[in-house]
Amino acid sequence: MVKVAIIGASGYTGAESIEILLRHSKAELVYLSALPEECGNVADVFGRFKGRCSLEIEPLDFDKLADLADVALCCLPHKVSMGFVPKMLDAGLKVVDFSADYRLKDVNVYEKFYSVKHIDTANLARAAFGLPELFRDEIVGADLVANPGCFPTGAVLAIAPLLKEGLVEPDIIVNAVTGASGAGKNPSVKFHYPNMNENIFAYGIGTHRHMPEMEQIMSDVAGTAVKVLFQPHAGPFDCGILSTVYCQPTGRITDEQLSKLYGDFYAGEPFVQMCKTSPNVKDVAGTNYCHVFAATVKGMVVCFSAIDNLVKGASGQAIQNMNIVFGLDETLGLK
Amino acid sequence: MVKVAIIGASGYTGAESIEILLRHSKAELVYLSALPEECGNVADVFGRFKGRCSLEIEPLDFDKLADLADVALCCLPHKVSMGFVPKMLDAGLKVVDFSADYRLKDVNVYEKFYSVKHIDTANLARAAFGLPELFRDEIVGADLVANPGCFPTGAVLAIAPLLKEGLVEPDIIVNAVTGASGAGKNPSVKFHYPNMNENIFAYGIGTHRHMPEMEQIMSDVAGTAVKVLFQPHAGPFDCGILSTVYCQPTGRITDEQLSKLYGDFYAGEPFVQMCKTSPNVKDVAGTNYCHVFAATVKGMVVCFSAIDNLVKGASGQAIQNMNIVFGLDETLGLK
Amino acid sequence: MVKVAIIGASGYTGAESIEILLRHSKAELVYLSALPEECGNVADVFGRFKGRCSLEIEPLDFDKLADLADVALCCLPHKVSMGFVPKMLDAGLKVVDFSADYRLKDVNVYEKFYSVKHIDTANLARAAFGLPELFRDEIVGADLVANPGCFPTGAVLAIAPLLKEGLVEPDIIVNAVTGASGAGKNPSVKFHYPNMNENIFAYGIGTHRHMPEMEQIMSDVAGTAVKVLFQPHAGPFDCGILSTVYCQPTGRITDEQLSKLYGDFYAGEPFVQMCKTSPNVKDVAGTNYCHVFAATVKGMVVCFSAIDNLVKGASGQAIQNMNIVFGLDETLGLK
Amino acid sequence: MVKVAIIGASGYTGAESIEILLRHSKAELVYLSALPEECGNVADVFGRFKGRCSLEIEPLDFDKLADLADVALCCLPHKVSMGFVPKMLDAGLKVVDFSADYRLKDVNVYEKFYSVKHIDTANLARAAFGLPELFRDEIVGADLVANPGCFPTGAVLAIAPLLKEGLVEPDIIVNAVTGASGAGKNPSVKFHYPNMNENIFAYGIGTHRHMPEMEQIMSDVAGTAVKVLFQPHAGPFDCGILSTVYCQPTGRITDEQLSKLYGDFYAGEPFVQMCKTSPNVKDVAGTNYCHVFAATVKGMVVCFSAIDNLVKGASGQAIQNMNIVFGLDETLGLK
Repeated sequence: MVKVAIIGASGYTGAESIEILLRHSKAELVYLSALPEECGNVADVFGRFKGRCSLEIEPLDFDKLADLADVALCCLPHKVSMGFVPKMLDAGLKVVDFSADYRLKDVNVYEKFYSVKHIDTANLARAAFGLPELFRDEIVGADLVANPGCFPTGAVLAIAPLLKEGLVEPDIIVNAVTGASGAGKNPSVKFHYPNMNENIFAYGIGTHRHMPEMEQIMSDVAGTAVKVLFQPHAGPFDCGILSTVYCQPTGRITDEQLSKLYGDFYAGEPFVQMCKTSPNVKDVAGTNYCHVFAATVKGMVVCFSAIDNLVKGASGQAIQNMNIVFGLDETLGLK
Repeated sequence: MVKVAIIGASGYTGAESIEILLRHSKAELVYLSALPEECGNVADVFGRFKGRCSLEIEPLDFDKLADLADVALCCLPHKVSMGFVPKMLDAGLKVVDFSADYRLKDVNVYEKFYSVKHIDTANLARAAFGLPELFRDEIVGADLVANPGCFPTGAVLAIAPLLKEGLVEPDIIVNAVTGASGAGKNPSVKFHYPNMNENIFAYGIGTHRHMPEMEQIMSDVAGTAVKVLFQPHAGPFDCGILSTVYCQPTGRITDEQLSKLYGDFYAGEPFVQMCKTSPNVKDVAGTNYCHVFAATVKGMVVCFSAIDNLVKGASGQAIQNMNIVFGLDETLGLK
Repeated sequence: MVKVAIIGASGYTGAESIEILLRHSKAELVYLSALPEECGNVADVFGRFKGRCSLEIEPLDFDKLADLADVALCCLPHKVSMGFVPKMLDAGLKVVDFSADYRLKDVNVYEKFYSVKHIDTANLARAAFGLPELFRDEIVGADLVANPGCFPTGAVLAIAPLLKEGLVEPDIIVNAVTGASGAGKNPSVKFHYPNMNENIFAYGIGTHRHMPEMEQIMSDVAGTAVKVLFQPHAGPFDCGILSTVYCQPTGRITDEQLSKLYGDFYAGEPFVQMCKTSPNVKDVAGTNYCHVFAATVKGMVVCFSAIDNLVKGASGQAIQNMNIVFGLDETLGLK
Repeated sequence: MVKVAIIGASGYTGAESIEILLRHSKAELVYLSALPEECGNVADVFGRFKGRCSLEIEPLDFDKLADLADVALCCLPHKVSMGFVPKMLDAGLKVVDFSADYRLKDVNVYEKFYSVKHIDTANLARAAFGLPELFRDEIVGADLVANPGCFPTGAVLAIAPLLKEGLVEPDIIVNAVTGASGAGKNPSVKFHYPNMNENIFAYGIGTHRHMPEMEQIMSDVAGTAVKVLFQPHAGPFDCGILSTVYCQPTGRITDEQLSKLYGDFYAGEPFVQMCKTSPNVKDVAGTNYCHVFAATVKGMVVCFSAIDNLVKGASGQAIQNMNIVFGLDETLGLK
């Protein structure tokens, strides 16, 4: 059994990770930590775990962590994570990090978008980017995996086959709508129920931090610099991201060719499934699946994907990565 | 034109009052006030008023208020209101007060449930209780109207005909479900979208402050002491209260008799309408209407009502009261 | 491996059963059937199963069923079920039946509420009532289990400790709110999104078929005839039932005594958990858990429970029953 | 008083038109018609009108219509409308038609997208296109107004200033999300509550009929042929459309210039309001307002608009058009 700790267990990605690990036949939750004011029995912090998990969420104790766990799912916020990850690695733990701290390979881009100096560039350089469908080889055996952002996961999986084959211009528009859990657990004006309910709005116009992350991954996939205009929206539902990606084909392409291209590209991928028309976020909610579809419209190609932002967009993908790192069946806990 | 001020205009009942007054042909908004940190142009505070209202919400200036307005809709919180209402009355304003401060005639009950000493018992004694369908005569010409709580409005209208005619035992169970706007504008854990969405829960078990208010009004209507067990719940919708009231008839009663009783009792009431089966909160959302229905089940009578908690349960009823106080058509702004 | 067939697999309870069985370590889905017009690959009928299950839903073929399966989860509608169950039993299958056909022991009550003659009274007499927390001994080894209705499951678990100990009068009011999935998969006016959204309403006033079912079980538990006034409501959420049960204690009882009573009664029950205040339906959504709480209010006792109507209220409980029938760990597939 | 008939009053746009006309000080509802099976008292057809409107919805009687009304709001479906409009015009009525039958000036485009032969090309040629902010002069005094589609209204208002001034390339991507009321009143699988709730999906991929309508209007505004890729989505809320429009500026443009451009273009327009960031559909729900915002992102311009699909996208705009046709204050019934 792989012994798993969750650092930052009191938030939504922590809870979703617990949910998945409770069903995992070859991994075991051994340690949960959070800020002191968010500690307590996990069943008190999240009522849904009554009778299902009786672990305490405790203030972080590095010795205990190192003593108990083989791997840490690090659900700390951006900027905070890189202060803790090096110590975990030094203690011999594998780490799957949920923050952005190890995703952006270009430190300048990171420092510009996150307005902070990067303090762990050594580990940044060796972190694997945890999108298994594209970078599985690098994840196998990695000590540190940077788990991708939720929006980049959805957008990249929607368009990867086209970029990989060089079939579209490297100038992409990503329009996405996320459910409200994407904003996290802390109450706020925008996500107060009477404001978010019966509402939908755009945010992060021109400034969302997942934009450079998309550009990095898409450029990697395409083998050329890709420019991304990413526009997120928040909608009145709990979980899920629907991505609608607009791109210009470099040559003529038919719907049949698209269908074959995607079918071939994702053949054998357990968690990416093709649809015959637009995916529904409801079909992937609560699962680690990504549903994709692409079609030609008015000379362009429109690609769609649906994921659960907390599962394939965070905790599910992290455990998929953990499974790969430890040489387990990639789908354990996730099917 | 009646000149209207709203004190505490930055909350949901303030906004709903503005919405209604914008359509009122014989009343005019002249002054809006709120706590300094919640001030600003009304169209910035509530985006829905862009192009529709350009008033500023200002910190309260009593001289300006007294100078400009004939009547104040006082949307201040419980306990705060009674510190301001006497000054407004002294300045010659009529006041419709949204708080509980002038509702409970028994000071001891008030002080027990609100944990504060009542500091304006003189005005408490002379305040009219603003449920027009039952106490219209007292409202006409009153200087101070205590606008009822949202739950008491729904529950009392559901059962008043039976109590008035002494047809049920004075021992009532009120089960109600309110939309999330009932909890107000400030973000909180319970009403954070990912918590309230897809959820329903009971609250205020045995302690809700609307329980003694219901007992007072129902006892007034029945002419005898009525005991009320009131259990509120919060559900995943913005506006509305569905009340389900259980009571024991004193003698045999049929559905036909119930139908006639309610029809007669509410004949001529513009805002109470009878249904042929359970009312829908959606049918009354955004309106000042109360839909009612009663039926016999297993030897008991079950009464239903639906109102919009912010309209008939607050701002709409306040303006209905204001119309009555000023001798206007009771329905102005509300049909 | 227990080999499981689902008869009537194209509806919501069929889908939920598939979902659970995909995670079951000692049971295997072998056969799915439905009406011819609802057949097809399960991943086409329910998009959420893409990549997770590739079975075909087929028109019912008894020989194939008998050949492949050890047990049938029979998700057929009321009245239809009793036409098929005898044949399945004759073919040597164990059956967990989701319909009401084998729940009501008094044929007269069944025939009155379901307006049809019962055609399988022999099996009715020997069917175990599948509420494991109360009737586990009868379920062990049973050939036919009548899976309880969703509302009775929630209501009975909320009040059983009080009834069992004779601590309340046998005159109970059950007020419940169900999510919209309770109405099934077929589109209808009431559950059309723009009607159900932002709405809540009562239905089945005085006529709901779960009323006599509650009376039967509660009477069994209490050892005396219990009268139940049951009033269901439908609210704007997918899954879950919140039951609020009102009853009159026979003597003095305190909150502490209630807490101890429930704690003792449900000690060791894996799927019933006690709360410290009102349960939230969101905490049990997607799980087989029932959260309960009871409190004294104004001389009465108010009991609350939350379940997922499709899991503990249907498919989860059916698989819990199946596990018991086959001598498996009762929680397999469900934790 | 303008005497108004609604033809096809039993659907959502009929109801919304009634709602608005009940508040209109210079128009009066005189006649409501629908298919025979959808007739009845308006308060029975739509519970929200209990006590507010007591008209009967009747099977269409042309003589009665012609006798009673000055203007018909024709809410009939596409293809049906053009069979009735000529008779209404012949009877001397003004007509505001909600269908697509008089919107597309190019009969070939109409016939291709609606798969039917146009049978009233004479009136098509003289119909005014009812988007007052762009074509007010043509609406004044028109006999027949083609009320725009909901998506074109939102998309065109979002980008009109840029097109009018020739500041963007005539190659536009319109990504829009509509609430579920856009699909109409008839129950369907996609809009069954348990399917639409917690869901979002794209539809009409490459085929939506509002695409050629957008191209026609945008081309009119731009004075050159505009190509539009329009991708609609349906989201889990009742009312509203959020449009996100992507376009390529022809030269350098700043956010300040965009702000000034939109401010100047819509100065004096009562129903178009500028936001300082993304509009919220909730701010315009239930109103005839359109909130707009535009920003530069990565060398492109992203324009946003929010409208209520049933009000500014249908009934409100129709009554705005009616007001213009009759020389009334354009905002009557709508502010």
